[in-house]
Amino acid sequence: MAIKLSELAQRIGCRMSGDDCLIENVADINHAEQGRLAFVYNPKYLDAIRSSKASAIILKEEWLPKCDKPALISDNPRLAFAKVAKLLNPVVYSFHGVSTSACIASDVTVPDSVNIAENVVIDSGVILGENIVIDACVVLSKDVEIADNVYIHPNVSIGQGTKIGSHCTIYSGVVIGADGFGYVRDDDGYLKVPQLGNVIIGANVDIGANTTIDRGALLDTVIHDGVKLDNQIQVAHNVEIGEHTVISACAAIGGSVKIGKNCLIGGAVGIRDNIEITDNVVITGRTFVTSSIKESGSYSSSMLLDTTRNWKRNVTRLKSLDEIVKRLKTLENNVYKNNMDSD
Amino acid sequence: MAIKLSELAQRIGCRMSGDDCLIENVADINHAEQGRLAFVYNPKYLDAIRSSKASAIILKEEWLPKCDKPALISDNPRLAFAKVAKLLNPVVYSFHGVSTSACIASDVTVPDSVNIAENVVIDSGVILGENIVIDACVVLSKDVEIADNVYIHPNVSIGQGTKIGSHCTIYSGVVIGADGFGYVRDDDGYLKVPQLGNVIIGANVDIGANTTIDRGALLDTVIHDGVKLDNQIQVAHNVEIGEHTVISACAAIGGSVKIGKNCLIGGAVGIRDNIEITDNVVITGRTFVTSSIKESGSYSSSMLLDTTRNWKRNVTRLKSLDEIVKRLKTLENNVYKNNMDSD
Amino acid sequence: MAIKLSELAQRIGCRMSGDDCLIENVADINHAEQGRLAFVYNPKYLDAIRSSKASAIILKEEWLPKCDKPALISDNPRLAFAKVAKLLNPVVYSFHGVSTSACIASDVTVPDSVNIAENVVIDSGVILGENIVIDACVVLSKDVEIADNVYIHPNVSIGQGTKIGSHCTIYSGVVIGADGFGYVRDDDGYLKVPQLGNVIIGANVDIGANTTIDRGALLDTVIHDGVKLDNQIQVAHNVEIGEHTVISACAAIGGSVKIGKNCLIGGAVGIRDNIEITDNVVITGRTFVTSSIKESGSYSSSMLLDTTRNWKRNVTRLKSLDEIVKRLKTLENNVYKNNMDSD
Repeated sequence: MAIKLSELAQRIGCRMSGDDCLIENVADINHAEQGRLAFVYNPKYLDAIRSSKASAIILKEEWLPKCDKPALISDNPRLAFAKVAKLLNPVVYSFHGVSTSACIASDVTVPDSVNIAENVVIDSGVILGENIVIDACVVLSKDVEIADNVYIHPNVSIGQGTKIGSHCTIYSGVVIGADGFGYVRDDDGYLKVPQLGNVIIGANVDIGANTTIDRGALLDTVIHDGVKLDNQIQVAHNVEIGEHTVISACAAIGGSVKIGKNCLIGGAVGIRDNIEITDNVVITGRTFVTSSIKESGSYSSSMLLDTTRNWKRNVTRLKSLDEIVKRLKTLENNVYKNNMDSD
Repeated sequence: MAIKLSELAQRIGCRMSGDDCLIENVADINHAEQGRLAFVYNPKYLDAIRSSKASAIILKEEWLPKCDKPALISDNPRLAFAKVAKLLNPVVYSFHGVSTSACIASDVTVPDSVNIAENVVIDSGVILGENIVIDACVVLSKDVEIADNVYIHPNVSIGQGTKIGSHCTIYSGVVIGADGFGYVRDDDGYLKVPQLGNVIIGANVDIGANTTIDRGALLDTVIHDGVKLDNQIQVAHNVEIGEHTVISACAAIGGSVKIGKNCLIGGAVGIRDNIEITDNVVITGRTFVTSSIKESGSYSSSMLLDTTRNWKRNVTRLKSLDEIVKRLKTLENNVYKNNMDSD
Repeated sequence: MAIKLSELAQRIGCRMSGDDCLIENVADINHAEQGRLAFVYNPKYLDAIRSSKASAIILKEEWLPKCDKPALISDNPRLAFAKVAKLLNPVVYSFHGVSTSACIASDVTVPDSVNIAENVVIDSGVILGENIVIDACVVLSKDVEIADNVYIHPNVSIGQGTKIGSHCTIYSGVVIGADGFGYVRDDDGYLKVPQLGNVIIGANVDIGANTTIDRGALLDTVIHDGVKLDNQIQVAHNVEIGEHTVISACAAIGGSVKIGKNCLIGGAVGIRDNIEITDNVVITGRTFVTSSIKESGSYSSSMLLDTTRNWKRNVTRLKSLDEIVKRLKTLENNVYKNNMDSD
């Protein structure tokens, strides 16, 4: 597929500068070949334009003087680039219709617009919307509901009663609807608390590879519209994640945690059980959230990198920090009292 | 299924108070409808009883005056609730017998009481007990042994020679018996050390979604009876986990770690290779266990949450903590010497 | 399979001491039975030789006086042991040829030396080398290329266009080539940035169970020859990992991170986006890499274990460390000024 630069400008709603040309695809500015469209989002990369073989560049209006090529002008070059990239790279899949190797319960209606790959297993009671793509070896358990335009990658397991909204993408290895981790100590070990809630996922949610989302204990685990989850995230039972919150890889979210809207949660963040986090909160990478967050803003708790040699010296002292502060206090009392004495 | 409150009282061994009624299921006290049984485990939620639509409540005897509904009386309302919930919600699965799409080696005997779902793969030498449920796309490699009453959820991979005790539940995406991570540096890279041990899992063990348990190098990796593992836990080769130890999600357990009985290990805890932890140890969330634990008790090492602004100020100082302590010591010497001088 | 000790000596290139004997397999020195070969790599375990039932021992020349059994002599007993263990335990798999239940696109050529187990799905355009083993329920998407002697364990998902070099081992649950986590904020939520790069994996790479490696955004994610990845590691888009770097379980590697050659990265290490790490770097367990590492050496940032009681006292003080240092400074100014005054 190749599209004229002028047509791309029109379709994403921005202005073209320079001669029209044919664009085959997008590319990184330093590796672009002819026919490719690159972008600059930071003025420090403007010098790369001249040496790039890209046929055209997306950039801000004020950077035009540095550009010797046809251009698309945008206040947000990254956004414009994403839009063009999407136009030039529609989602493809190599299977169409329903594979004869798929095992689909007899009571399930599969719309003509749905594509089901090899060895998919769909249990009874499952409800499928339009234009769904279900890739190989996916298992949809009883009574799962999938809305329109959902793409499910290979080897995903979706547990009984889960509801998934439209335009979601679920990557490989994801497990939705496993039982929450609830036990009560009994005389001879732990008794499992039956997990009777479901997982309810809104529209436009992406769920990264090998992420796990447990079902609720009595009420449901709820992921609202527009949430983006990276790989290997753990979402425990009864968690609620607000609209357009983005969570990076390997975050571990404890039971009954409530996260607000439009939050940005960094990689490998941990959130203790029962924590509440309000809207518009940023949590930096590797932070452990040990108390609820009631005001929007940025929060942290990780350590800084050091050489092992320096780190050892300092981290050992950390184990006597309280004693150190007490010594300081004693010294202060001593010095300031002496000062007073000597006044 | 609906059961009379009086019958539930009898079956879980507790006393009923008030009029008998029919119970369809359990529910959260604030969301219960008629026919539901809720519970209160903390006196601060007693006020919710009056406004709840639940037909009956589980609570402690001393809270009865606050209760305007039929009740089950228990010293441990959570435990009583779990027992009732289990009675009212027996484990169900929608497949029975052996799916024709399952691939089962010809030498494997499948008892009549075993249920095997679509696309399951069972290799030669596998031994299956009674009342086992194997859900879709599970792979049991050569010589795996599964005892009675085990439930294996979809897309689980169980490696050669693994033994699983009775009444275990294995959730989706679990990998048991992958090779341990053992290499020796050779001239031209790393040489793999063959991993010749197995994984031996006791009875009543639950293993959460996408958890991985590696086989031992020479001896076995051993998970004892009653252990409960949450999602995305990593158990390295030759680990041993004692009876009734409970480990929350995303814990990373290093090679040859020995964990005692009845421990409670929080979420995202890390345990360094070769650590030994005695019985009855509690490790709080996100702790990194850097030394063996020889006395039972509670252990920690995570940081506390702060605003990014405050955190930056403090965490930077942490990198010179040793120097700070030395400055304090110098100052102490100076002051206390002066004191002596002036005495 | 049983091999004479003298033959083992010859095949791994080391010297035999004592009488020849027949070796059936390797074993742990304390659990070895007759016919087994054990090893000692640390002189503190030499006393175990006498009580061991092993038929022969691998050890260093200088330890021979402590050895009452036939021996193989090596400067690096662990390496010699790994070599013998590999000889005595060739990789086996119980399926041969191509399972009739495998779904293989009609344009894919399967060499006679390739073994494909049950329910494998291979999409169109896939290119397979010689002596490949593909275990049950593996999904190879469009245009994947697998070189010679690769072993892929059950339930692995390999995304479109991924290239895997020779002699790689991919363990169960691995997901390679899921989309990188790239979004741009738009008016009504986040717009996905299409992920157009691939994943390129060199030769002799091992990838542990449930590890995820995302495809690049525009360029590729690249894992070089000899890299060993443990379980549950997250490798984000556009990461590059240099030759013979070894990464332990549960590491989380952010987008566009570049890691050099021959690094050793501990368990549960986190690496922030865009970090560069030079060659020959050691990063200890649970470290969070917050800045690039330009000099080889060892780096750390985790905390040390303490009792919860002590930890609470100290960690609370950490939140006012900056203020503590300022108090120290004030006190120093006061004391040293007074000293000067009194001089």
